[in-house]
Amino acid sequence: MIIHMVDGATPDQTQRVIDRITEEYGLPCETIVSATTVIGVKGITSYVDEGRILELPGVERVIRITEKYKDASRNFHHEDTVVDVHGVRFGGDTLTVVGGPCAIESEEQALASARMARAAGVDVLRTFVDKSRTSPYDYRGLPIEQGLELAAAMKAETGLPTVSELIDIRHLDAFLRSGIDIIQVGARSAQYSPLLEELARLDVPVILKHGFGNDMDEWLSAAAYIMSGLDREGRSVGIGNRKVILCYRGIKSFETETRFSADIGMIPTVRSRSHLPLLADPSHSSGDRALVERVAYGFVAAGAQGLELDIHANPEEALVDGRQAVSHEARRIVDNARAIHATLSGVGIETGTFAPATGGDGT
Amino acid sequence: MIIHMVDGATPDQTQRVIDRITEEYGLPCETIVSATTVIGVKGITSYVDEGRILELPGVERVIRITEKYKDASRNFHHEDTVVDVHGVRFGGDTLTVVGGPCAIESEEQALASARMARAAGVDVLRTFVDKSRTSPYDYRGLPIEQGLELAAAMKAETGLPTVSELIDIRHLDAFLRSGIDIIQVGARSAQYSPLLEELARLDVPVILKHGFGNDMDEWLSAAAYIMSGLDREGRSVGIGNRKVILCYRGIKSFETETRFSADIGMIPTVRSRSHLPLLADPSHSSGDRALVERVAYGFVAAGAQGLELDIHANPEEALVDGRQAVSHEARRIVDNARAIHATLSGVGIETGTFAPATGGDGT
Amino acid sequence: MIIHMVDGATPDQTQRVIDRITEEYGLPCETIVSATTVIGVKGITSYVDEGRILELPGVERVIRITEKYKDASRNFHHEDTVVDVHGVRFGGDTLTVVGGPCAIESEEQALASARMARAAGVDVLRTFVDKSRTSPYDYRGLPIEQGLELAAAMKAETGLPTVSELIDIRHLDAFLRSGIDIIQVGARSAQYSPLLEELARLDVPVILKHGFGNDMDEWLSAAAYIMSGLDREGRSVGIGNRKVILCYRGIKSFETETRFSADIGMIPTVRSRSHLPLLADPSHSSGDRALVERVAYGFVAAGAQGLELDIHANPEEALVDGRQAVSHEARRIVDNARAIHATLSGVGIETGTFAPATGGDGT
Amino acid sequence: MIIHMVDGATPDQTQRVIDRITEEYGLPCETIVSATTVIGVKGITSYVDEGRILELPGVERVIRITEKYKDASRNFHHEDTVVDVHGVRFGGDTLTVVGGPCAIESEEQALASARMARAAGVDVLRTFVDKSRTSPYDYRGLPIEQGLELAAAMKAETGLPTVSELIDIRHLDAFLRSGIDIIQVGARSAQYSPLLEELARLDVPVILKHGFGNDMDEWLSAAAYIMSGLDREGRSVGIGNRKVILCYRGIKSFETETRFSADIGMIPTVRSRSHLPLLADPSHSSGDRALVERVAYGFVAAGAQGLELDIHANPEEALVDGRQAVSHEARRIVDNARAIHATLSGVGIETGTFAPATGGDGT
Repeated sequence: MIIHMVDGATPDQTQRVIDRITEEYGLPCETIVSATTVIGVKGITSYVDEGRILELPGVERVIRITEKYKDASRNFHHEDTVVDVHGVRFGGDTLTVVGGPCAIESEEQALASARMARAAGVDVLRTFVDKSRTSPYDYRGLPIEQGLELAAAMKAETGLPTVSELIDIRHLDAFLRSGIDIIQVGARSAQYSPLLEELARLDVPVILKHGFGNDMDEWLSAAAYIMSGLDREGRSVGIGNRKVILCYRGIKSFETETRFSADIGMIPTVRSRSHLPLLADPSHSSGDRALVERVAYGFVAAGAQGLELDIHANPEEALVDGRQAVSHEARRIVDNARAIHATLSGVGIETGTFAPATGGDGT
Repeated sequence: MIIHMVDGATPDQTQRVIDRITEEYGLPCETIVSATTVIGVKGITSYVDEGRILELPGVERVIRITEKYKDASRNFHHEDTVVDVHGVRFGGDTLTVVGGPCAIESEEQALASARMARAAGVDVLRTFVDKSRTSPYDYRGLPIEQGLELAAAMKAETGLPTVSELIDIRHLDAFLRSGIDIIQVGARSAQYSPLLEELARLDVPVILKHGFGNDMDEWLSAAAYIMSGLDREGRSVGIGNRKVILCYRGIKSFETETRFSADIGMIPTVRSRSHLPLLADPSHSSGDRALVERVAYGFVAAGAQGLELDIHANPEEALVDGRQAVSHEARRIVDNARAIHATLSGVGIETGTFAPATGGDGT
Repeated sequence: MIIHMVDGATPDQTQRVIDRITEEYGLPCETIVSATTVIGVKGITSYVDEGRILELPGVERVIRITEKYKDASRNFHHEDTVVDVHGVRFGGDTLTVVGGPCAIESEEQALASARMARAAGVDVLRTFVDKSRTSPYDYRGLPIEQGLELAAAMKAETGLPTVSELIDIRHLDAFLRSGIDIIQVGARSAQYSPLLEELARLDVPVILKHGFGNDMDEWLSAAAYIMSGLDREGRSVGIGNRKVILCYRGIKSFETETRFSADIGMIPTVRSRSHLPLLADPSHSSGDRALVERVAYGFVAAGAQGLELDIHANPEEALVDGRQAVSHEARRIVDNARAIHATLSGVGIETGTFAPATGGDGT
Repeated sequence: MIIHMVDGATPDQTQRVIDRITEEYGLPCETIVSATTVIGVKGITSYVDEGRILELPGVERVIRITEKYKDASRNFHHEDTVVDVHGVRFGGDTLTVVGGPCAIESEEQALASARMARAAGVDVLRTFVDKSRTSPYDYRGLPIEQGLELAAAMKAETGLPTVSELIDIRHLDAFLRSGIDIIQVGARSAQYSPLLEELARLDVPVILKHGFGNDMDEWLSAAAYIMSGLDREGRSVGIGNRKVILCYRGIKSFETETRFSADIGMIPTVRSRSHLPLLADPSHSSGDRALVERVAYGFVAAGAQGLELDIHANPEEALVDGRQAVSHEARRIVDNARAIHATLSGVGIETGTFAPATGGDGT
């Protein structure tokens, strides 16, 4: 909750607001004085009765919305967060490429795809053993233990750090034991709070996908679940997990030509609103190999700090999403993406606070 | 997977298709002979190479899509399913009203709201102890055990069956022990497969909310997860849980005047596509008390077989979604909804198979 | 533009705001004093520099948005508007049914469909001669003059007032000469300002369809174009045309099962925000005959003051949108719709001002 | 499938088509005879070889669903179309930049903005005299004649070709007389067929904006209206206007952080489906100056063949959409955009036919 005082509010007026917040609700406040005075209230503010605050002299307005994802917000953490995974950096001025098969299907497919991804120049290897599927009748991956063994073999073969999606909380220990370096949270789990809370207890990097039915507030709020380390009752459970990497993939819209609508404007928007590293996924957003290359370039030019790419040694025979996987062309894509990134090095992203774009009206 | 044979296909041709499916893929088939012959293939058909089937003589086309939610589809179960909960019926020609507070906040609030809901004439009582919230800083309910005690008290006070949303699988035993009669799956868990699979092992009725980012295929596929009782590897784990009750609440769209866009056409559409009982939630779809009443009438007139209604003894002080809760007017709403249902008794819903409505083009 | 003064603003402060508005911008103001003081500014306020107003003492905020459709807004006209068309009333407590073929195709089809519509009990006859189509290769209607002759014949045959969509402004005189009683503006013309401005000069009732890509603000602003009678330079051209009847048909969304997503919550929302009569179109919103009946009932129960229904004597042979036209069942639909309307007579719609529903957050 | 016979086709010719359809494919036909003869083929027509039908005498065209925008489709015209405007090329391997103020407001503003746009390196100058606005109370531009004089002055000052949006058909002659080189069709007119048909009669290049409520089929069909030169009765009126330039700007979606959702995947998709030159508009899609730069780079990297950019000498004082206009930074944006384009020179776009991306299902 953020409380804006009117221009010219007195220190006494400000103090009276802080007193009411701390005495009646037991919540800590911090005060920012610039042109006007702004009071930030921490903790669970649902109990705070807005009317009780607004009635105090000198209060201009009470804003709840920006707080939804406070820990993920650039308003509360101005510098870019950089997440280091065994020497691979996510965030800041780096372009980091994650790539590999959409799902592990067999030893041969896994190793061949891993080698192809390494040859393409990826920094982190996709080793996905559990697939979330719309229909229960679809292929959902090899048995978990078998998949994790192949994931470890892919890591050994390439020497690269690995990422794998965790769906079922009960698989967490097995994931960590098998050497998975980054846990991914998928679109269908992106608002499942028990999973997010479990990841808040770890010191393991997390790639958080953008749920295709979620807006930015919901996405960054999911990041805040992992970062805040608050339990259901609002108590801290440890310090939270700050190693969150965002991955954009677009949303559903009325346009069905592409699989999801990956709004290019969201790349600089999210960079501006959040300090977290931002990847984008050209494979799952477009859903079509013929589009992946150009979508990848678009994301990087717009300011994405990395890509997550489906690379499959033999896309025609993939059991999941083969239609969107690239193979030999992966190397060209990674090379060109790095060239675009280099061309734009130093251009920057505007990271000042800006309001939602609802006011425009021309054609 | 459904295989349509051409008009005039011979029994030999049909048999050859079945042989290939069973021998090469080990999947069971069932044959429906009407004007033409149709072969239904069960189990996980992702491995089936369509080209291998289409090349056989007599095969007209191979359809995968309708299978996504086979167990929930009216194509495979023509009659309305009726779910009985201690004498309260969901489905068929009945109008069933679920109501109560959005969340349990305190003993006084819980019992007062329960009494108000019973006085309004609800059939099943909402006793929600765990709330899924967008932001981790928001109120998520009392401690679970305390909430479940109050849920039991609400049940004792009113004598009504109860429903409560289960978010964390680890709370399942406590829910069942405390006497919750119906488990609800909420919008944010609607595609979380480990939870759906766990419910597939039970003989407890489930109300499955429509996720606000999901289309009908995804929603009915989530129902099929619960009903099919298939595990990740496609093996049956028991017979599945057939007691699934759907609850529509609308989706996100570009219109922000209402909280969600609750497409009235989806009521007869879902009734037609699925045999499962269909409720609708005027409180969470509209998000505004001023709209709830008329939205409730609209849903019932369009063919909803029940309503789920936020009823709170004191909406102005509710901690969650108080803006959409009704109080004294609940009785009028339930009475008028039953009157509309009676007026339309006997009109029916067209339940023949029909194709998605993508072809139209007038103004 | 609406200017909210702070609680406790003095009359002097209010006057100073009014003076600045009138002196610097030449715009008339009106003042509403309730709990706080609100100043309404009329005319084209784009030139008004918000900063110049906000800097004055006592000003809390300046709102532009609610003004977008001022003439159509209930904030500026509290009572329901009733439009009378040769004794047929639209608005208030009446349920008014418009029906007939989607397009006039031939004399036989036109007259047979007109007779069927009259037998079903419609109040106004659809006589559509020009069809707006997505593709230039599609059927767009008979030659205009030939179509208008058949429209006149349909009117003579039934004795009912008629409505027809005007697409090309250059056809306006021919439409009026041929006896069309109501001009309809279709979804694809719903924001075409030269057409709306032309209708502002007339004293002929207009049915304004909701464009499938427009939100409520845009729709009601289109109504304001017709009602305000302002030209491009903001000058009045006559008094404007107040006889606007709204017709809702839903919008595009990511759900493709129905043709458009007709949000049932928009019916009471639009009734609350605007004083204009509100119809709804179950044929074009659902796009499927199997859905039309129940969607019609839903609209009426939710508070629509009328229906616009495709009725075709022989839907299987219709050249446009035959899939959504009803024939013999039209009578049952109209009868049941009137029965629901009678059941709910006296229940009313909440018409107080309410804010957009963006704050909610439960499941 | 619909088969159009040529005007004057004989009954014998029609019968021969029907015979071929029924005998070779076993599909029933029905014939509609109005101005010309049209044969509708029922049932599953995927097997029908179009060539076998088109080869028969008297057959004009065979329409399947994907043909809705035939003249704009790459299926019917494989090579990129290049439109030349006084030596400025749109399409092919060129990157063409259109820029200038969103609207002409005054002589000083117009000329200063024109000079700034030329200094930034634009190829074509925006000289917009008529603004389509949501609300009738908003600023819609100077009087047309006065605006056109200033447009001519901007052209004289810079020596650049100019583009201006035509809203009202009745202004067409004045536009052409005043020396406007390219007519733009705006989002709100994008499906207004009388305007599109009028442009079909000209030999003047047209920039066709993507309507924010339209999908790709509707957009390319609007292009086909201009290109086909068919009137309402399907008769050719001249040869049509082939000089159509597309301009993408995104659509409405449930995400409100950006003004429109500009799906980056649509850039390579539209390039693949259509042979027409494709621009993109980073100003109107994002609606925010802080986003324009990176969105521009994203569009170019994804394969856009040009940009349309709001450039205003003094954005803070703009009467329309000032929030999204750039000023001094325009030069950097144009330079970097050209550098990205050069980096990717030779990479190409996949232009083979591909099906809509509806089948995928991973996370």
